[in-house]
Amino acid sequence: MGTPKIVILGAGYGGLMTATSLVRTLEYNEADVWLVNKHDYHYVTTHLHEPAAGTAKDDKVRIPLKDVLDFDRIHFRQGTVSAFDPQAQTVTLSDGEVLTYDYLVVALGSEPETFGIEGLREHAFSIRSLNSVRIIREHIEYMFSRYHAEGGNPAYTTIVVGGAGFTGVEFVTELAERLPALCRMYDVPKDAVRLVSIEAAPTVLPGFDPALVQYAEAKLKEKGIEVHTNTPIKACTEDGVVLGDGQEIRSKTVVWTGGVRGNRVVEQSGLETVRGRVKVDAYLRAPGYENVFVVGDASVVFKEDGRPYPPTAQLAVQQGKACAYNLAALVRGMPLRPFKPELLGTLASLGKWEGIGIVGKRRLYGIWASLLKRGADLRYLWQLGGFPVVLKKMRYFA
Amino acid sequence: MGTPKIVILGAGYGGLMTATSLVRTLEYNEADVWLVNKHDYHYVTTHLHEPAAGTAKDDKVRIPLKDVLDFDRIHFRQGTVSAFDPQAQTVTLSDGEVLTYDYLVVALGSEPETFGIEGLREHAFSIRSLNSVRIIREHIEYMFSRYHAEGGNPAYTTIVVGGAGFTGVEFVTELAERLPALCRMYDVPKDAVRLVSIEAAPTVLPGFDPALVQYAEAKLKEKGIEVHTNTPIKACTEDGVVLGDGQEIRSKTVVWTGGVRGNRVVEQSGLETVRGRVKVDAYLRAPGYENVFVVGDASVVFKEDGRPYPPTAQLAVQQGKACAYNLAALVRGMPLRPFKPELLGTLASLGKWEGIGIVGKRRLYGIWASLLKRGADLRYLWQLGGFPVVLKKMRYFA
Repeated sequence: MGTPKIVILGAGYGGLMTATSLVRTLEYNEADVWLVNKHDYHYVTTHLHEPAAGTAKDDKVRIPLKDVLDFDRIHFRQGTVSAFDPQAQTVTLSDGEVLTYDYLVVALGSEPETFGIEGLREHAFSIRSLNSVRIIREHIEYMFSRYHAEGGNPAYTTIVVGGAGFTGVEFVTELAERLPALCRMYDVPKDAVRLVSIEAAPTVLPGFDPALVQYAEAKLKEKGIEVHTNTPIKACTEDGVVLGDGQEIRSKTVVWTGGVRGNRVVEQSGLETVRGRVKVDAYLRAPGYENVFVVGDASVVFKEDGRPYPPTAQLAVQQGKACAYNLAALVRGMPLRPFKPELLGTLASLGKWEGIGIVGKRRLYGIWASLLKRGADLRYLWQLGGFPVVLKKMRYFA
Repeated sequence: MGTPKIVILGAGYGGLMTATSLVRTLEYNEADVWLVNKHDYHYVTTHLHEPAAGTAKDDKVRIPLKDVLDFDRIHFRQGTVSAFDPQAQTVTLSDGEVLTYDYLVVALGSEPETFGIEGLREHAFSIRSLNSVRIIREHIEYMFSRYHAEGGNPAYTTIVVGGAGFTGVEFVTELAERLPALCRMYDVPKDAVRLVSIEAAPTVLPGFDPALVQYAEAKLKEKGIEVHTNTPIKACTEDGVVLGDGQEIRSKTVVWTGGVRGNRVVEQSGLETVRGRVKVDAYLRAPGYENVFVVGDASVVFKEDGRPYPPTAQLAVQQGKACAYNLAALVRGMPLRPFKPELLGTLASLGKWEGIGIVGKRRLYGIWASLLKRGADLRYLWQLGGFPVVLKKMRYFA
């Protein structure tokens, strides 16, 4: 048997961290490592709300793969995975090419979940990739630019954000900070603009620490955001949303952040999934396949209390490193190491210099949370590409 | 009889120059001067192609009226003129208010002319105001942002510019310079982008000096612009344009720059018009009305050889000054002075540091034309608002 071939699907947090760690761990001749990704760049998902709102350039979140991977050491194949078959050990790309593998890492991420809400799929935007968020930003600007030509119709300057989880709250607060500039840019009067956050649960950030939730709700209102909690969205049309109580909000821009679900390619692969995600074993492998690892949002890991860890970037990064370790161990015939997440906390921004978070047992508010979040972001860039990458992105953190 | 009331309709080149000159000439108690304009700013029409292409900020072309007019000396009324009646001496605004006047200055500009080409009115954009050009820019960016989501459909990154007169050529060359940045910004491959200039006449810039026309055509091709001369547009749809020979160009962005016509409000006023424009007397007055002046694109002035002067910013500015002189003379019971245009030449940009022009009898090419155009632009700002305005806009000219 020749050099084993490792194929990694996806260059999100989990896949990319697997790839970079693996290249650092293995010698050149120990394995033939392939990475398949739709784009030739990685994007920092936890910052997508910024280019979506237009408060940061795309370059803040886009990291060219060539900047963090040694293309002499890894085979990069740009393409979209349309299917993979763990029994046949094949991966099929949308252009028809079929790859084979000895070891597979599935890091295909998640998809927006619309919970069957009528019209949401067709008419709402979602924050899931660089391509999807620049559409949001450009759409908002386009609608603002048309405001006068449309006779001052406020639907063009009303933005509805469905879902007030982390993504929804980070996006809506970021956008609130951009509105004054948008009004100036397009000569739109400030009182023509509405920013509406809609959440079905009784509070924003459902499930998060109550004191921080209260702080976040106060900040949202302070920023002029209309917050509707306990309010499910019944339908979305091209003219806006219809709420549970029948009330209608007319808006040309509806952004849905209400949830994610497992990836359909993973669901259709024949791997055993729970709501679209693979419940991996202690070594991050798919049930029944010793050579298939699943990391990031495509996987689900359970805590000791039997509840799943929420899918986060932090978890995916730690899984990526653990997966690389175990792959190297397999290649070398050494024992695997079980995966133990060590989550440091949760941080969310509420605009540029505002945030909330829990680190250990400690609550953080305001600028401290915001500064620590920058620190965590820089740490991630450091892990990914060391000093050169940190240096390139540094200026976006001011 | 009390203080005479002078009402100026429109704050384009002609109207605004009339207003500023008038305020400088007359003492406070000599006349009651009113200016009616749709926006609370003036825009520099000859630069609209830049924010349209996205190569300059809106602030380059937008001059707040308060920066150039002393609002203690002039009554500014923001509103849209829906009609005026020279017999009744009234002006009706779209909100129903009726103004009366002793002297009227009609400076309402022109409108795009579509020559009855099917679908152009509905589906093509036009370069006629700040509001209209930012729609173009935002639309282009929005289409580029959707390119990937639309499966790489090149119609989203194909831009058709109908008409290769001055506006068309200035816009298309400006846009050519922005394309590399747009491709980078939206990760669109360069070969997916098409920029098409379509002109019914045998050359671009029809009627202009043949040597300069040749130079311009060469520059357009050098910049990768597809130039179709001798090519009328038969129809415009939401999917692109159909050319005279039946060929179709699929494009989500069609910008029509093929011509202007007189203003409909002027046509419907009862004033005598020639193709929508008022053929003014030697003193810039409408035929039959000693108290109604018409300046700028709403007027037409004939040369000694019986041909009309083309409607340009330069002509409008000179008319504005002459009109203010004659109004002051009327108020003071002094003799009027006939209007004599003194046109210095014509300059057109072909991108940021490229241009062509005729000054006196001399042809100008390349950077020299481009620099002289900047000089002429600064001179205009100087005339309008002196040093403070020049200072504010200076940085946009680098």
